[in-house]
Amino acid sequence: MAEPADLDVLGIGNAMVDVLTHADDERVTKLGLVKGSMSLVDEAQARALYEAMGPGVEISGGSAANTIVGVASFGGRAQYVGKVRDDQLGEVFGHDLRSTGVLYETRRATEGPPTGRCLILVTPDAQRTMGTFLGASVRLGSGDIDERLVARAKIVYLEGYLFDPPEAQAAFRKAAAAAHAAGRKVALTLSDPFCVGRHRDAFLDLLDDHVDILFANEAEICALYEVADFDAALSKVRGHCEVAALTRSAKGSVLVGNGATRVVDAHPVERVVDTTGAGDLYAAGVLYGLSRGFDLTTCGRLGSLAAAEVISHVGARPMMPLRSLAGSVIG
Amino acid sequence: MAEPADLDVLGIGNAMVDVLTHADDERVTKLGLVKGSMSLVDEAQARALYEAMGPGVEISGGSAANTIVGVASFGGRAQYVGKVRDDQLGEVFGHDLRSTGVLYETRRATEGPPTGRCLILVTPDAQRTMGTFLGASVRLGSGDIDERLVARAKIVYLEGYLFDPPEAQAAFRKAAAAAHAAGRKVALTLSDPFCVGRHRDAFLDLLDDHVDILFANEAEICALYEVADFDAALSKVRGHCEVAALTRSAKGSVLVGNGATRVVDAHPVERVVDTTGAGDLYAAGVLYGLSRGFDLTTCGRLGSLAAAEVISHVGARPMMPLRSLAGSVIG
Repeated sequence: MAEPADLDVLGIGNAMVDVLTHADDERVTKLGLVKGSMSLVDEAQARALYEAMGPGVEISGGSAANTIVGVASFGGRAQYVGKVRDDQLGEVFGHDLRSTGVLYETRRATEGPPTGRCLILVTPDAQRTMGTFLGASVRLGSGDIDERLVARAKIVYLEGYLFDPPEAQAAFRKAAAAAHAAGRKVALTLSDPFCVGRHRDAFLDLLDDHVDILFANEAEICALYEVADFDAALSKVRGHCEVAALTRSAKGSVLVGNGATRVVDAHPVERVVDTTGAGDLYAAGVLYGLSRGFDLTTCGRLGSLAAAEVISHVGARPMMPLRSLAGSVIG
Repeated sequence: MAEPADLDVLGIGNAMVDVLTHADDERVTKLGLVKGSMSLVDEAQARALYEAMGPGVEISGGSAANTIVGVASFGGRAQYVGKVRDDQLGEVFGHDLRSTGVLYETRRATEGPPTGRCLILVTPDAQRTMGTFLGASVRLGSGDIDERLVARAKIVYLEGYLFDPPEAQAAFRKAAAAAHAAGRKVALTLSDPFCVGRHRDAFLDLLDDHVDILFANEAEICALYEVADFDAALSKVRGHCEVAALTRSAKGSVLVGNGATRVVDAHPVERVVDTTGAGDLYAAGVLYGLSRGFDLTTCGRLGSLAAAEVISHVGARPMMPLRSLAGSVIG
């Protein structure tokens, strides 16, 4: 019996609480991090990094979770799957998600590592550099994927970071299979160029058969196809999936699909404060647009709008209801 | 044997992690809170309030802790005493304090209630309304006060909120006695008009004999003396303590001491974003100034400067090193 598509987007990812601090470039280098990227750290490294950091602000994050909050903020019906522990940060994560209207029912781990956290250093140029301790998110497995839930969502959205915890790969594949069995779409974000480096073959394989909608920024799509420039990557991705939405920071984004290529400008921002979440919120706008049947250009504009909101303040989740801003794009 | 005064200020207070969220006036009223004030809530009420709140940002707070961070940010040598539990929020609190250069050695509770938290609703007018769950801070007792440590600080600074947990009153009195025995100064902030209502007789008694430096805002000093206007309160406080520093929001502050009355303007602010911590940081500037022997007017100006910094962003602790801003006041 077919499930009704009563959800717009179901997101699956690594559940994280962000710990944001300000730092200068020198400090980022001294801490052994690569500016602008995400590095995986173990619990001991996370502790050392935290001790070397200035005072922090804790705020719920996680790439796909940020995206799903953005979809809900546009007025979309959205659910999230990701694993925290039964600790204080896990409680914070669940509260923040549910209080934005996102459905979230994943069973919390009652043993093992604490809730995952992402230590984020924001440099004066508003760039963010991340050290991620996966924590409890490594406990997400295929047992956490309810195929009937997946079948209820028009789009299932998976983050590339999910390929880092080994168990989650099985969850990823199970969700993708369930979505296609129900005639739904599968979306993937490549997440980070180093993440692409760690999982290139798997991602290329997924694109061949299992992914309909791809999100990537310029560095990630070039890393995937091992090409030096954006245009070469663009040629490769055409035909590799149904829709590809490729972001280029201040240069805006390019969307390809149905034989068409659409170039969308970045939405103007008065002052860029913190770029954390820019890609996540761009994906939120595009996914919301696709789930509601808007054309590619409109989808791209919704993405640009959401990204502009999130980079104009500290933190990776919108502070303004995106539906109140969307009027300028969808009338 | 006399201890050297190698600390400028020792602060003692309720250790809190703030959970900040934005809310409109209607929501504040619906939640049963009195706008602009601090209400004490128990664990069940805190849970209900949290569930009714929008997504939050966790950031270390606690009135005296904010002040002590401000003193350190001016370049002062500062230590803090306050109780957290051995949980994740307790870890966050300790990290954030130490990473600003504050000394903090209070033993963490290993049982009992979790680390205290202060649920803060920021309304569109930048006003903050607080619901405080004292949590582990009720476990602070006289056993946590090291008289030799107190003797090493030029000023011991106590928050009025400390009178809410019954055990802490003994800690308060022990610290005040130790400071005077060593020839040091005792400073008190009245914290909140309702806090004054709860402890008026005790505060008046403390002012008679045990407090040298008093901090209060207009509402608090009027509540203390049960008078209707600021000038009447000002007449009462003259002679009641060595120095009184009274804040009046945008109207600036009035400092009285040594028979003199100094009126200091508020420091200009481009945009008031969140008033949380304004009084705490004003106290930081004045305490730093007094500990370094500046005149009353300069102390007031340092206070205004620090308050202006903290209300221009979200969160109750400075984001800029205050010593880098102090040049405009102390040359």
